[in-house]
Amino acid sequence: MNERTLVIGSSGNIGKLLVPMLAKAGIPTVAMVRDKSKLERHEGIEIVEADLEKDFGHVFEGCNRVVFCAGSGPDTGLDKTFLVDLWGARKAVAQAKKHGVEQFVMVSSMGAGDPEAGPQAMRPYLIAKHLADEGLIQSGVPYTILRPGQLTDVDGSGRITTTVPEQSDDQKVPREDVASVILETLRKGAPLNEIVDIYQGEEAIEKAIG
Amino acid sequence: MNERTLVIGSSGNIGKLLVPMLAKAGIPTVAMVRDKSKLERHEGIEIVEADLEKDFGHVFEGCNRVVFCAGSGPDTGLDKTFLVDLWGARKAVAQAKKHGVEQFVMVSSMGAGDPEAGPQAMRPYLIAKHLADEGLIQSGVPYTILRPGQLTDVDGSGRITTTVPEQSDDQKVPREDVASVILETLRKGAPLNEIVDIYQGEEAIEKAIG
Repeated sequence: MNERTLVIGSSGNIGKLLVPMLAKAGIPTVAMVRDKSKLERHEGIEIVEADLEKDFGHVFEGCNRVVFCAGSGPDTGLDKTFLVDLWGARKAVAQAKKHGVEQFVMVSSMGAGDPEAGPQAMRPYLIAKHLADEGLIQSGVPYTILRPGQLTDVDGSGRITTTVPEQSDDQKVPREDVASVILETLRKGAPLNEIVDIYQGEEAIEKAIG
Repeated sequence: MNERTLVIGSSGNIGKLLVPMLAKAGIPTVAMVRDKSKLERHEGIEIVEADLEKDFGHVFEGCNRVVFCAGSGPDTGLDKTFLVDLWGARKAVAQAKKHGVEQFVMVSSMGAGDPEAGPQAMRPYLIAKHLADEGLIQSGVPYTILRPGQLTDVDGSGRITTTVPEQSDDQKVPREDVASVILETLRKGAPLNEIVDIYQGEEAIEKAIG
């Protein structure tokens, strides 16, 4: 079988919402985590321990789709922004290319398109995300780059917009809706080679995506 | 006149050795610094204030060669490694491309070829240098990438080797010799589209380069 989906960052804030959705949807999945104990078990999900800061090429075996939703998080230093968000992503793309992956879904960020337009404190992170996205685009691996607004932990509504809202107060989106968008892109294998902005909105995710 | 050499990082540890050499060699030079007071005046050197973290495209006017020897230095945080060593270099390359620069001399670092082979503490810096070099190589701007060993402040000997010494104790090079190598690459307009390792050695710089 060569049609599994690899989720890198399975125990992260988006990953832990996405993995049960993939299980429920019956999508064969390999969930990569640094520490198995941090992820609940689900039917149809193979949990594999691996570390983005080390060699992890083995986890790509038998996978034709990849989701990168790993992030160093706000509580770590900028060394992890370099090592995980930027270099970890670059390494994942290199492995995806090597393994002939057919779709690489990158969870990027609002503002990654133009890091210098962002607030000073966010710039290192936005540079990391920008260059991770750039590496994916240049790799030739078919990509879906998602750029969600400010992430929130409220329940998802199942509705989004892919147009950047004018008011900065509206430039946010529940993590649960981002996970639903990822699921939808995997189901449809689309859109490919596009960058999609995601914000809370009025359009049903199934209509907005693909 | 469109044959000036732009030095980005003129008041840095290598830049402040290079600028007087360029003056002495009669090479028309634009020395970019954040703060004019930090650089001695020399005949034939135009000093221009600009900041790598802001817009600096104007300093490229009339320049056909560029030297990037700016560095955030060991006393700043990793935010500056992102903003100066990585993003500043990327911006400089973009401007060089826009202005049709004929040679971009990048002062990179030993270990930038394979950041993960370096010591853990150095990895963020080596990733920044790796991706700065990669951006230059991919830009299409004719490049000379110099990867010096551990930099020292002893007087230059005028002699180097471009082969990595086996003993780690020998993997160093005086900054003054690096500046002499830069001068030589500019004089010859060569080598182009090559990565050159530089360590203390036995070969005269004029013979080793170009």
